[in-house]
Amino acid sequence: MTDTTNAHPDLTTFFSPKSVAVIGASPEKSTIRGRLLDNLISNGFSGNIYPVNPSHEEVQGLKSYPSIDDVPETVDLAAIVIPPKHVPQTIEACAKKGVPFAYILSSGFAEGGEEGVALHHQVKDILARYPIRVAGPNSQGLFNIADGMAMTFSRVIGALDQRPETPTGRVAVVSQSGGLAFALLRGARWGLDYSFVISTGNEIDLETLDFANYALQRDDTDALLLFIEGLREPQKFRAIAEMAANAGKPLIAAKVGRSSAGERATASHTAHLAGSDTAYQAMFDRYGVIRCFDPDDMISTALALTSSPLPHGNRVGMITVSGGNAILMTDLCEEMGLEIPALSEATQDQIRTVIPTYGSPQNPVDLTAQANYKFGTTTSLGQTVGFLVDDPDIDTVIVQQNMGPHGQMEDQAPEIAAHVKRSNKPVLLYSYTTPSEENVALLSSHHVPCYVSQRGSLHALKALSDYGSFQDRWKTNPPPADKPSAKAKEALKVFNQSGDQLNEVQAKELLRLYEIPVPKTEIVSSPDEARSAFKTFGTPVVMKILSGDIAHKTEAGGVILNIDNEDAAANAFETILGNVKNHMPDAEIDGVLMEEMKSPGLEMTAGLINDPDFGPMVMVGLGGIFIEVLKDVAFCPAPLGKQDALDMLKQLKGAKILEGARGQPPADQDALADVLVKISLIGIDLKDHFSEADLNPVIVYPNGQGACVVDALIAKKS
Amino acid sequence: MTDTTNAHPDLTTFFSPKSVAVIGASPEKSTIRGRLLDNLISNGFSGNIYPVNPSHEEVQGLKSYPSIDDVPETVDLAAIVIPPKHVPQTIEACAKKGVPFAYILSSGFAEGGEEGVALHHQVKDILARYPIRVAGPNSQGLFNIADGMAMTFSRVIGALDQRPETPTGRVAVVSQSGGLAFALLRGARWGLDYSFVISTGNEIDLETLDFANYALQRDDTDALLLFIEGLREPQKFRAIAEMAANAGKPLIAAKVGRSSAGERATASHTAHLAGSDTAYQAMFDRYGVIRCFDPDDMISTALALTSSPLPHGNRVGMITVSGGNAILMTDLCEEMGLEIPALSEATQDQIRTVIPTYGSPQNPVDLTAQANYKFGTTTSLGQTVGFLVDDPDIDTVIVQQNMGPHGQMEDQAPEIAAHVKRSNKPVLLYSYTTPSEENVALLSSHHVPCYVSQRGSLHALKALSDYGSFQDRWKTNPPPADKPSAKAKEALKVFNQSGDQLNEVQAKELLRLYEIPVPKTEIVSSPDEARSAFKTFGTPVVMKILSGDIAHKTEAGGVILNIDNEDAAANAFETILGNVKNHMPDAEIDGVLMEEMKSPGLEMTAGLINDPDFGPMVMVGLGGIFIEVLKDVAFCPAPLGKQDALDMLKQLKGAKILEGARGQPPADQDALADVLVKISLIGIDLKDHFSEADLNPVIVYPNGQGACVVDALIAKKS
Repeated sequence: MTDTTNAHPDLTTFFSPKSVAVIGASPEKSTIRGRLLDNLISNGFSGNIYPVNPSHEEVQGLKSYPSIDDVPETVDLAAIVIPPKHVPQTIEACAKKGVPFAYILSSGFAEGGEEGVALHHQVKDILARYPIRVAGPNSQGLFNIADGMAMTFSRVIGALDQRPETPTGRVAVVSQSGGLAFALLRGARWGLDYSFVISTGNEIDLETLDFANYALQRDDTDALLLFIEGLREPQKFRAIAEMAANAGKPLIAAKVGRSSAGERATASHTAHLAGSDTAYQAMFDRYGVIRCFDPDDMISTALALTSSPLPHGNRVGMITVSGGNAILMTDLCEEMGLEIPALSEATQDQIRTVIPTYGSPQNPVDLTAQANYKFGTTTSLGQTVGFLVDDPDIDTVIVQQNMGPHGQMEDQAPEIAAHVKRSNKPVLLYSYTTPSEENVALLSSHHVPCYVSQRGSLHALKALSDYGSFQDRWKTNPPPADKPSAKAKEALKVFNQSGDQLNEVQAKELLRLYEIPVPKTEIVSSPDEARSAFKTFGTPVVMKILSGDIAHKTEAGGVILNIDNEDAAANAFETILGNVKNHMPDAEIDGVLMEEMKSPGLEMTAGLINDPDFGPMVMVGLGGIFIEVLKDVAFCPAPLGKQDALDMLKQLKGAKILEGARGQPPADQDALADVLVKISLIGIDLKDHFSEADLNPVIVYPNGQGACVVDALIAKKS
Repeated sequence: MTDTTNAHPDLTTFFSPKSVAVIGASPEKSTIRGRLLDNLISNGFSGNIYPVNPSHEEVQGLKSYPSIDDVPETVDLAAIVIPPKHVPQTIEACAKKGVPFAYILSSGFAEGGEEGVALHHQVKDILARYPIRVAGPNSQGLFNIADGMAMTFSRVIGALDQRPETPTGRVAVVSQSGGLAFALLRGARWGLDYSFVISTGNEIDLETLDFANYALQRDDTDALLLFIEGLREPQKFRAIAEMAANAGKPLIAAKVGRSSAGERATASHTAHLAGSDTAYQAMFDRYGVIRCFDPDDMISTALALTSSPLPHGNRVGMITVSGGNAILMTDLCEEMGLEIPALSEATQDQIRTVIPTYGSPQNPVDLTAQANYKFGTTTSLGQTVGFLVDDPDIDTVIVQQNMGPHGQMEDQAPEIAAHVKRSNKPVLLYSYTTPSEENVALLSSHHVPCYVSQRGSLHALKALSDYGSFQDRWKTNPPPADKPSAKAKEALKVFNQSGDQLNEVQAKELLRLYEIPVPKTEIVSSPDEARSAFKTFGTPVVMKILSGDIAHKTEAGGVILNIDNEDAAANAFETILGNVKNHMPDAEIDGVLMEEMKSPGLEMTAGLINDPDFGPMVMVGLGGIFIEVLKDVAFCPAPLGKQDALDMLKQLKGAKILEGARGQPPADQDALADVLVKISLIGIDLKDHFSEADLNPVIVYPNGQGACVVDALIAKKS
């Protein structure tokens, strides 16, 4: 695996400074500049704070300095909240003084019209000349909770006070949106703890992945919440995602701009470019990044992933105290790809012993209002949770309960926690009524995640199941090493034969080098050559004119199919040449291509794109309406392992066609997967050189009979 | 439109009794039987309450009676909370005394094993003999809020106290799930008011649609929240839905059992059968029922629909104070089918006057933190709302705001409300931080719905847009009258010619009667007849054996295609007869069918199913993989108007094929829609007789060139 972690700066001093200056601090707590200082003072930061403001002797009880030069020590971090036009000179002053980190919170740079763009470049120029590192601009700031360092003007950091005494999981928030960054603190109410929150703004220097890298080093961080508009250095993403996967610290990401309107908005409102959403999604899928589309889902997902063991499957046992609602959830589960299997007779028999006859021992299990009755030292609910986690056909359990003030959580919370611990299977709680604060705190202290949103609880369950599968696979089937193969040199030689793009013959030569099955071909230059070449084929052939000047071979009479004897081959040579000369007398002719006719099979399409953010990606799709009307294609970043390739095929909407729908035999998915693995190597070997490769059609034969790339075109980087 | 409303009983006395008995009332407030009486006493009910309990002289401060016979008046309503085995005799006692309504809250009937089923039948028998009407059993009860009549043991009715002083919209809740029924009261916190909540339980007598009918009569009910496992009398649904549509009172329904596990669970846990989800969905679509899949969405949707004017389109103007989050919402909008159009230059110019240069005047509009600044008597946000509602290209507006305690809602709420009133366009608010109670109350008092869930706010926006479109269409394009056509009698005659199913010839005769285009056919019985028949065709024909004994005509050598002259026709007759005699000497032969060969075109499939719940439904789909692999079909209840038929085609995933994808000309959708309208009439005319009709293929020609049903099979009800 690639190791580019040392490309990220050490941000310990930035996050845990011993001294800070607030340049632009104001005595007015209601303004942005005043609130920042107020937040910094009142959240327990123990370092020195130096307000810098030439108009005041004292600001909010602290001595104020006219400029950063006057501050009596070289602070670790300078916050800058002054009008944008004064920022460049201020940054330079900090740099000259030796301040290692500055944080520009002011807006009006790359996102703020012509004038702002000019200021952006002034700051960039200064950064090129000094070692100072800078976060922001256009940011709401940072809250390093461990140090009580609230260098932010956010008004909502008080949401953190709603944390229960014993929070259940610890996350870091790295967000390109300031509003969202601090809004995510509302997860505290549901038991989430935070190591830090940072709003990264325009990322003129320090960027999302630098902060993610730092977060992954922190012991008090079990998962990362990322809000991404567009990564500044996407090429570093793979290494960060690998570190996270190895550490078992999930990346939970919202990435905007997947719709056309969203893309337009991203480009217009910030200095970020959204990048290809398809490429981002393919990277997320391969590296186990859990994508969310809503801040509530981010919180729900983080809560489950930081408090629960990981399941090894998607089979859910559901317990309810109210039948109807559970069926609503059952429907949603199935829609999301979670299974609600029927329970074994043995498990049902166990459940029957603790529920009334008018309950249901099936899945979902309906305990009825009896759930809260006690049986000696245990409750009906507690016992049923135990029966379900012990069932080998159940991977996770979700409980629908009424957790209003009258619930029996004092009994149930420790019972559930004990079953989770014993079985190492997750149990989630959903309350269909507003749960009391006491019950939430109680469950949190037992690390049982509890939800008030039905959909949220299921998103969390799905994320658990997906991340569990990802981790299982990451251990058994990590992505192959991202390095050139032994064939790279030879491939480049073949590649460099041609101009802008490799023609059919050159492309097939390249494919052959990687042992990708292509039809047998030969170039012939006379009727006699055609005749003797045909003998070596022994199967019907097609003959086609070879000429860089002729784009539409068939229209030019330059293609003849189904040639099945030597004479016909010789005749075809002459016919083709005659036709072509007639059609385009000046065309330069390179010869005539003789190619084995492939028998028909399932027509698919495969390819490579060279994504500007993430490099080579393999694409595969079914031919015909699937690709043309339904846009049914799957992508995966190169290089591919065999399992990656097989998984891509499963992702297709038309996957059933490959399995043999409509009376057809199952297709040779294995052979097709081999082709995908091999073209992924071409992508890696030539990643600095190609722009895209289009293999169409790839004919796939019935299981065991292989696949063949019938036509191919490879374009170079312009 | 059908009028079956008089089939529903008058439930005024049931919901607003002057006197009630509580049979089984207990002094223990912690038990179900005690809590019910406690709720009844403590929520302001002004009628007489008579506890019936032979073990006590007095219960919760009220004189208790040994039996219903001893109660000194004939109460309007008797609640029954006693063990199930005593219920039948108690119902009979009530009935004998002349009590008009009883409400069985006890469980253990049809859902409670063999013994329960027996009790169910005992109660049914009593109901057959007396005029008493009964709700329940297996119910959590009823809360008629206008009367303070809380005949329920629910522990969560206190959620109602969180209503702001001026709630914004009024709904009724009718739910087959007791838990969910009262859990929906948590919408009170967001400004929702409730006329009543009823948990309908097993519906041994009074059922969902009876309560819905009553709710629609109440002036204090603007919308209905329905939770449906399966309707007892689905045939009455159409009339209720029509009443609701005419009254402009939206039906917001969760209907469970759309997944296979959900269906299993519904059948097992209650006495309800889920019915065909496809049929329910088709009914919901046609009658504007807004389907929700989550209780939170039900509340969100109800809030918007009961407080806002209806929009006439799906074009959303979005305003934010935090850019990134808005783009997340933009993506979700587009996914849901809501448009975020680019704004006109004129509107952008207006917005530029009230936002800073680093904001964005595009859609979404980013006001930045400046949103809350005041410009004279108005705020930046208020002005921008005004610009957007005045833009003719915007139908609805959503505002992302921070509505924590420090918002400027005192200024903004009345400004927004004034713009809504003036423009008659809805404006919704979403707070990305937990809003303060004061702000929620303020917005509620101005009838501006406010949301704390991003997805919830968009679900609501989508529901507004969908229901607005539905109402527009309901007025211009209501469903055609559901009554037999002039052809019904003749159709039945054709239909009755055959046995179990109509063969090709009979089916086509029926289609011809409705002027549905089918190929020309003729039956011939000799070579000479074949010869002379051919002359009348003048186009190539196909000839097929006609025999009820031969299922596979082609295999029997009974089909000859492409016959293009008289001699060939005569020969074909003899060949076919020879082949068939050879293949199956004993087959009874009805003749040989000569049929016009249709030229190829787009192959589709259409049909009718006779749904056991809702009667005839029209089906349409694209042929081939669309129907076989992707299950891409659309359904609509008969009868269809032309617009219904065209809308069905738009619903298909492969709709683009009809519009002319892949270089094909656009198909004659109009002709296909005509076919669908006409087969819907067959469905209505023969609804008591047919089980299904399969028209496959229906060949659709390029625009203006028509469509033709090439083969058809119609099966009778068994």
